Amino acid sequence: MTAWLNGTLVEQARLDCADRGFTLGDGLFETLCLADGAARHWDRHWVRFTNGAKVLGIPILYGQADVLAAIVDLARVNALTDGVVRLTLSRGPGARGLLPPVVPTPTFLATLAASAAPLGPARLSVCHITRRNQFSPLSRIKSLNYLDGILARQDAADKGFDDALLLNTAGQVVETTVSSLFALMGGQLVTPPIADGALPGVARGLVLERLGARERSLSVDDLLKADEIVLTNALGSRPVVAIDATTFAVGQKSQEIQEIIQRP
Amino acid sequence: MTAWLNGTLVEQARLDCADRGFTLGDGLFETLCLADGAARHWDRHWVRFTNGAKVLGIPILYGQADVLAAIVDLARVNALTDGVVRLTLSRGPGARGLLPPVVPTPTFLATLAASAAPLGPARLSVCHITRRNQFSPLSRIKSLNYLDGILARQDAADKGFDDALLLNTAGQVVETTVSSLFALMGGQLVTPPIADGALPGVARGLVLERLGARERSLSVDDLLKADEIVLTNALGSRPVVAIDATTFAVGQKSQEIQEIIQRP
Repeated sequence: MTAWLNGTLVEQARLDCADRGFTLGDGLFETLCLADGAARHWDRHWVRFTNGAKVLGIPILYGQADVLAAIVDLARVNALTDGVVRLTLSRGPGARGLLPPVVPTPTFLATLAASAAPLGPARLSVCHITRRNQFSPLSRIKSLNYLDGILARQDAADKGFDDALLLNTAGQVVETTVSSLFALMGGQLVTPPIADGALPGVARGLVLERLGARERSLSVDDLLKADEIVLTNALGSRPVVAIDATTFAVGQKSQEIQEIIQRP
Repeated sequence: MTAWLNGTLVEQARLDCADRGFTLGDGLFETLCLADGAARHWDRHWVRFTNGAKVLGIPILYGQADVLAAIVDLARVNALTDGVVRLTLSRGPGARGLLPPVVPTPTFLATLAASAAPLGPARLSVCHITRRNQFSPLSRIKSLNYLDGILARQDAADKGFDDALLLNTAGQVVETTVSSLFALMGGQLVTPPIADGALPGVARGLVLERLGARERSLSVDDLLKADEIVLTNALGSRPVVAIDATTFAVGQKSQEIQEIIQRP
């Protein structure tokens, strides 16, 4: 696939090995859906991406319109109307040491991948090998520091599950490694608050706004009593049918949420 | 500087932009001292590095002797007998998604930098913007996920301090962004335990073994009553002269520790 790197379409994008994105995970990314040739919920993704860059203090050298044009170009040259766009921003090359360069030369990479087949119902396993750190500002941005999620995902796969249910350091439920989590409890749709360590996902925001869902702290015991559980991310929704040995029925909420996410 | 990348000396090392070290921080590194042409405490560094790679499940395709030969080559071609070696291992390129490729093609990069001037006494500021996550296995390995440390270091610098004193999610003292921490209390040298979120540094291990230091959990209040505080990492030691508004005298321990670290 052709990528867009710092303003240019390149067939084989290569990076300086001193890029702090590689040496220190010093950057962030954004994943969004290309649907019928359009970047879905583009304004919301751009706001979240630029807010995250501000938290890290990494300047974005391209405007919103430039990056949207890059996505359109990627779709054209790669002959795709549907797929998954990833924007990656790192602080760029730097000398040894943690302190960022005074004048950084950031790396901005945009890539496009074909859509994967829709995911079926998910079986989750409560993660016992790591925790989300709700004390870190990184829990609120989509940073390049994804190793906890990788280890949790691999651990769940090794146990035969589709994804890991992540808890924070206080033992509260937060999300999975790649999705926000909604639970239907007594007729009310709820999701763990940002303060508990949940990433403010774009799909999560849409469900809160459009379906009247509410933020609420959840223990594992709370969650196991839910009537229905649904996972969301920018690519769509999927129902949860099991958390370890506890099973859940698939209700109406997953499809309802899917439509909410797909609506412009 | 010439680098060593996957077995080859290269003048300008470039990486695939799909390298999971860049896209997900999926890897780890090791920093060690080149002194008089020799890799200091090479066996200890190799053990820690390979243990970390095992935690992440990333295979190392080169033996200890191969990598030592690479370091010797780097010293020769870059005409340095003293400096700082960094080994970086990532899981290499991967498709979209968190699950590692079934057969990874890891990236192994070794670089050499000239030694910086010795660091003087350090003034620390207690970090209030993030915490070490003692629940994560990443707190025990030198992973590429360094953003918490970067944010803490930048915050300390913005306040006019040399480094940040990091606490864990229980509020206990752990280390700084780049150093282990030793405190002299009632004649006994102590350092926070690994279980509290401290990285098992090579220099830290030397001080524990050779100077009879002990592991002990420390609150900030405990630390502020210490008779002497010393920071260590693979490159050496430095005394702490202030933690926020509290000042400390420089005693004999820093020099004693420096000699311990420099001894083969």
